[in-house]
Amino acid sequence: MPLWKVYHPASAFSADDKKAMAVAITDVYGRVMPRFYVNVLFEPVPDDNLFIGGEPHPNFVRITVDHIAREFPSDKAMSGFMKHMNKVLKPWIEDRGFHWEMHVDETPFSLWTVQGHFPPREGTEDERRWIAENRPSARTHD
Amino acid sequence: MPLWKVYHPASAFSADDKKAMAVAITDVYGRVMPRFYVNVLFEPVPDDNLFIGGEPHPNFVRITVDHIAREFPSDKAMSGFMKHMNKVLKPWIEDRGFHWEMHVDETPFSLWTVQGHFPPREGTEDERRWIAENRPSARTHD
Amino acid sequence: MPLWKVYHPASAFSADDKKAMAVAITDVYGRVMPRFYVNVLFEPVPDDNLFIGGEPHPNFVRITVDHIAREFPSDKAMSGFMKHMNKVLKPWIEDRGFHWEMHVDETPFSLWTVQGHFPPREGTEDERRWIAENRPSARTHD
Repeated sequence: MPLWKVYHPASAFSADDKKAMAVAITDVYGRVMPRFYVNVLFEPVPDDNLFIGGEPHPNFVRITVDHIAREFPSDKAMSGFMKHMNKVLKPWIEDRGFHWEMHVDETPFSLWTVQGHFPPREGTEDERRWIAENRPSARTHD
Repeated sequence: MPLWKVYHPASAFSADDKKAMAVAITDVYGRVMPRFYVNVLFEPVPDDNLFIGGEPHPNFVRITVDHIAREFPSDKAMSGFMKHMNKVLKPWIEDRGFHWEMHVDETPFSLWTVQGHFPPREGTEDERRWIAENRPSARTHD
Repeated sequence: MPLWKVYHPASAFSADDKKAMAVAITDVYGRVMPRFYVNVLFEPVPDDNLFIGGEPHPNFVRITVDHIAREFPSDKAMSGFMKHMNKVLKPWIEDRGFHWEMHVDETPFSLWTVQGHFPPREGTEDERRWIAENRPSARTHD
């Protein structure tokens, strides 16, 4: 459900960095939903293909996220999430002197399938099974 | 209008596969809108740039779609569409043993132009002409 | 806030073209918001990775935009913006004989941070400082 895209300078992250960042992001969501919901896609961007304020920026990490499985109930929940995620990413981004920007969109739950299955609603028995087995399977309830 | 992005392992699809998938997707929309509305963009992803549940996944196809020209009128219409599209894609994805996930977002009709033209509304004479000619042209109605 | 993605044939734009396009786009937004809000990302697309209406299209520029900082108040404001942007891009796209399509999505203001800061609301003193300094800094108001 969350689809993270991390646009970064080609040399910014090693294979180990990318793995560690993906695990750190997944750990946040994995407390309340199946871990396999979390997709993290890294996209290296050549220096002359990204402009910030009309200037090339060789040192910028731009993150976009699509949320599908959950909607935030309030502005306070949104800002709490954003603050937490900025902290989670700090070791790889802020602490290394990168500039960065991040935004999240929320997209319709009913327009989402995993392996052809419609994911179960939050808090259902089916979702507990998806979490426990860490893989999608046929729903037993509507 | 529909903008499909297919993120796939670099070796997953041949040029013929990509063409055939694009035609199959376009055929679905082409029954009710101009064929040229359908954009399908393939993005090969190196193995160590995609993580599912915090693990690299060399065998995963991730599809995202933006819908602009039409909004689904109901949850039932949404789930019918998703089921149908999973079936349409089966020969290239499920039948070849890939894992996959797909989600659709709906974006504002008024923030969309093709060749600088604002596309006509559904069911109008202008839209019938765009379908018949399979190209955009100036609208004759508001 | 606006995140522009320009998908283009690999040979379509020189480094100077890309810089000039990014500046032209930034100039539009820069009249009402900090210039550094404007992100323009160019993504070259190999010929056999983009299909329009089920056919490869070697001559197509596809632009997607995410708006975060501002929402359009009306359909009229939306169409005025789209018309203006088509004109701004004309020298690099229409005048060179490319086909093109562009759409904009609007995403939640509260799910956005720059350098870990929540951007100030439109018209506030904090926003005036961000504009004047052309960089993010801690907010002095909620």
